[in-house]
Amino acid sequence: MLKLNCDLGESYGAWSMGQDAQLMPLIDQANIACGMHASDPVTLLRTVKLAIEHGVEIGAHPGYPDKEGFGRRAMALTPDEVYALVLYQVAALDGVARSQGGQVGYVKPHGALYHAMMNDKLTRIAIMQAVADYPAPLNLVMLATADYQRFEQEAGQLGGAALTLRFEAFADRAYTDEGQLMPRGQSGAVHHELARVVAQAEQIAAHGKVTTHSGRSVKLPAQTLCVHGDTDAALAAVKAIRHMLVEHSAGV
Amino acid sequence: MLKLNCDLGESYGAWSMGQDAQLMPLIDQANIACGMHASDPVTLLRTVKLAIEHGVEIGAHPGYPDKEGFGRRAMALTPDEVYALVLYQVAALDGVARSQGGQVGYVKPHGALYHAMMNDKLTRIAIMQAVADYPAPLNLVMLATADYQRFEQEAGQLGGAALTLRFEAFADRAYTDEGQLMPRGQSGAVHHELARVVAQAEQIAAHGKVTTHSGRSVKLPAQTLCVHGDTDAALAAVKAIRHMLVEHSAGV
Amino acid sequence: MLKLNCDLGESYGAWSMGQDAQLMPLIDQANIACGMHASDPVTLLRTVKLAIEHGVEIGAHPGYPDKEGFGRRAMALTPDEVYALVLYQVAALDGVARSQGGQVGYVKPHGALYHAMMNDKLTRIAIMQAVADYPAPLNLVMLATADYQRFEQEAGQLGGAALTLRFEAFADRAYTDEGQLMPRGQSGAVHHELARVVAQAEQIAAHGKVTTHSGRSVKLPAQTLCVHGDTDAALAAVKAIRHMLVEHSAGV
Amino acid sequence: MLKLNCDLGESYGAWSMGQDAQLMPLIDQANIACGMHASDPVTLLRTVKLAIEHGVEIGAHPGYPDKEGFGRRAMALTPDEVYALVLYQVAALDGVARSQGGQVGYVKPHGALYHAMMNDKLTRIAIMQAVADYPAPLNLVMLATADYQRFEQEAGQLGGAALTLRFEAFADRAYTDEGQLMPRGQSGAVHHELARVVAQAEQIAAHGKVTTHSGRSVKLPAQTLCVHGDTDAALAAVKAIRHMLVEHSAGV
Repeated sequence: MLKLNCDLGESYGAWSMGQDAQLMPLIDQANIACGMHASDPVTLLRTVKLAIEHGVEIGAHPGYPDKEGFGRRAMALTPDEVYALVLYQVAALDGVARSQGGQVGYVKPHGALYHAMMNDKLTRIAIMQAVADYPAPLNLVMLATADYQRFEQEAGQLGGAALTLRFEAFADRAYTDEGQLMPRGQSGAVHHELARVVAQAEQIAAHGKVTTHSGRSVKLPAQTLCVHGDTDAALAAVKAIRHMLVEHSAGV
Repeated sequence: MLKLNCDLGESYGAWSMGQDAQLMPLIDQANIACGMHASDPVTLLRTVKLAIEHGVEIGAHPGYPDKEGFGRRAMALTPDEVYALVLYQVAALDGVARSQGGQVGYVKPHGALYHAMMNDKLTRIAIMQAVADYPAPLNLVMLATADYQRFEQEAGQLGGAALTLRFEAFADRAYTDEGQLMPRGQSGAVHHELARVVAQAEQIAAHGKVTTHSGRSVKLPAQTLCVHGDTDAALAAVKAIRHMLVEHSAGV
Repeated sequence: MLKLNCDLGESYGAWSMGQDAQLMPLIDQANIACGMHASDPVTLLRTVKLAIEHGVEIGAHPGYPDKEGFGRRAMALTPDEVYALVLYQVAALDGVARSQGGQVGYVKPHGALYHAMMNDKLTRIAIMQAVADYPAPLNLVMLATADYQRFEQEAGQLGGAALTLRFEAFADRAYTDEGQLMPRGQSGAVHHELARVVAQAEQIAAHGKVTTHSGRSVKLPAQTLCVHGDTDAALAAVKAIRHMLVEHSAGV
Repeated sequence: MLKLNCDLGESYGAWSMGQDAQLMPLIDQANIACGMHASDPVTLLRTVKLAIEHGVEIGAHPGYPDKEGFGRRAMALTPDEVYALVLYQVAALDGVARSQGGQVGYVKPHGALYHAMMNDKLTRIAIMQAVADYPAPLNLVMLATADYQRFEQEAGQLGGAALTLRFEAFADRAYTDEGQLMPRGQSGAVHHELARVVAQAEQIAAHGKVTTHSGRSVKLPAQTLCVHGDTDAALAAVKAIRHMLVEHSAGV
């Protein structure tokens, strides 16, 4: 069954963000902030416990060291800085998870670091190498695009252990004919109607493809769907998608 | 043989601190800053590699989240905050160390957190529990005092895995007749003459005792000696102590 | 008329806190976070503009440099550190306010720094001196207590310019017979019924006194009332107090 | 006489940087870090006092909020973020300076923010507007280039008060025939011989021009020379330049 992944654990001290308690029962994979773009040791520990309690797979969600910008601002880091930054955050989360009986299963970079991973090869290789060098086997989550195989090729050429990639798609974003996300600024880039979102999720789950903005069909081989829970509408969409997936899986 | 432990990896970004390269070959155990009172992912990784290269045991040196105060200012944290704070830092360092072929062997809190550990039972139990809960077996370094057995009793009563304590002494600090460090403010609290420092190190290494400020002898069962390397004089003292230990061990 | 002061501008980057837009029209004095325990330059500027728009007096609300703990955790700072810390935050807010056509009128320390000011003389003198040394004349807000005159005495003995103190009271907190706030832990320390809160506000406004927890009456010479707006109930209380003050002032 | 400006006050808590005490007597203008890329309230206050003591003009040296990267890493901030960031830092330094009897006279952005100012118009306008909006009249320091007049044009078109620009040149950097600095990566970009550095300083001071890398002469109308003091060689160069300027001024 297609999995659902969601960003969680993004509160910081007295500042609360997200609806973690409502979301955790609905998702399969929790992308947990690691203390750089958001979170702190207490928040991280609490989120880890919540994920374990709900049997949700724990993912590291490392970001740039920029709480003020929530890791959303591009920062010009060297590959060595990116490598150390990702390793540190993955390690912190995994060790805390293991102390509570869990473990990290994958890594999904956050915000501007995710964008840099998709668009800048040096940053991407640095992230891949950090994940590959981590002593436990971890998957790296990347955006499912039509040309995803070049990323698998890069991952195969790393030194050391093999790195497995995991691709994610979006149910609430429009795709171009090239199998890329339409840029947010463009009209129609985000689906706002629940039915449209659920239909796209179903397409991805059942057929591994989406209908593009222009009406064509493109292949999109995704193992996981990125969902959000920051608004009540978003939460309703997650519930509807989960319901669809369960019915789908039951052969209804 | 009595071991030598030293704080290292306390640079931060462009700011350099300590003489890590000169010290690492002289010591047995490196207390490596974990990113809260000092250090950053790049500095931490570099220090871990240096320790592995020299076969030095890696210790986590967690501190309060206060870079501006270098972790030296007391902070009123709850036991839950202390527990999460220590776990996070130990995990970050251990995961990075393991990615490079090493591992953390012990935990020694830094600065004001160390003082809180020695003087406040709730903080101490929180630290002990965090170290005990960490999935790999780790020692906790505490100050060797005449009444050290009460700490071993506390460690034995924790839930979960057994926690082994490791006690440290100082060669350059005067002790009271009660087997406590003389407070820094008092005259004679710090030994400045090299010969005096080496003699006290030898007493601890050979006989597990020290001559107190008043001239009496007290038992001080220490497995490791805390040394410093921030000045050239300190570095010379470390070399002299290392020389003495080697000769002593060779039965000279 | 008795003034109402309230903490505002305590968001941080993407993390929102408080209901500033609803509160600003209801209060007289905005205690604006200065970037250490909360806020950032964008948040600070936005809050300053909102205060100016509503004709609300701008107060600096400096705190300990501890965002993770929201400035609520005691920190052992030296008087020199406190002096520089307060001066820096007051200066940052005042300069930004002046660039927008406003100015800071007073200083009210936040959280654990406020507690330290009330309970530790060295910290208090350092804060007083920082406020007195600021080139524009500023008031310092302190807790109204029965023995408030000893603070005025201390303020009168500072070197340099005269420092004017401004005392604040609470409508939703019970007082002891000694004219001190009942500690939060104790039963009955916080008034939860709206009528009780408004009645206490009226007592302070009209008679400069409060009925203590034991039923006695103590003098409490306050020029300003500290109100909160973090919950809907708190917001309703502010509205009710404002209504009472307006009626009272109109001689109803 | 041509002025000398230098970055100072870039220590942070226990981490020391620079040779401020030796440099301050040699320079005219101190670019003082404001707490974002470096410094803290105690360091800032100490540096301000040192500048006042030596009669050195105080300049605000605002940077990106990135201590880990020392403000040297490009960050994608919006113009609104840049505006608030610069205003906040200038205000903090100026208020502290005024409390000690000094005042800020100019603003010179630091590191990656300086580069963004020179290369990105939106960032530059945001910085110009922040400096212009500050209630005291301040100069903005920019790199002297052959096409400096377009910056003066931009400054003249701001809303509000007039903004005066101040241009700086480098004695230890090679210039291209277009009157731009040769990029650091290129061979010959930095002058290492003392005589070469002093000669270029004299060219700028006496004739407002430099000999470019290819041997041509370009006009470079600079009012101030940026010097460094982080190494002993740099310090020696500053002394030699100061000596040359004094002799030059005396008509020797």
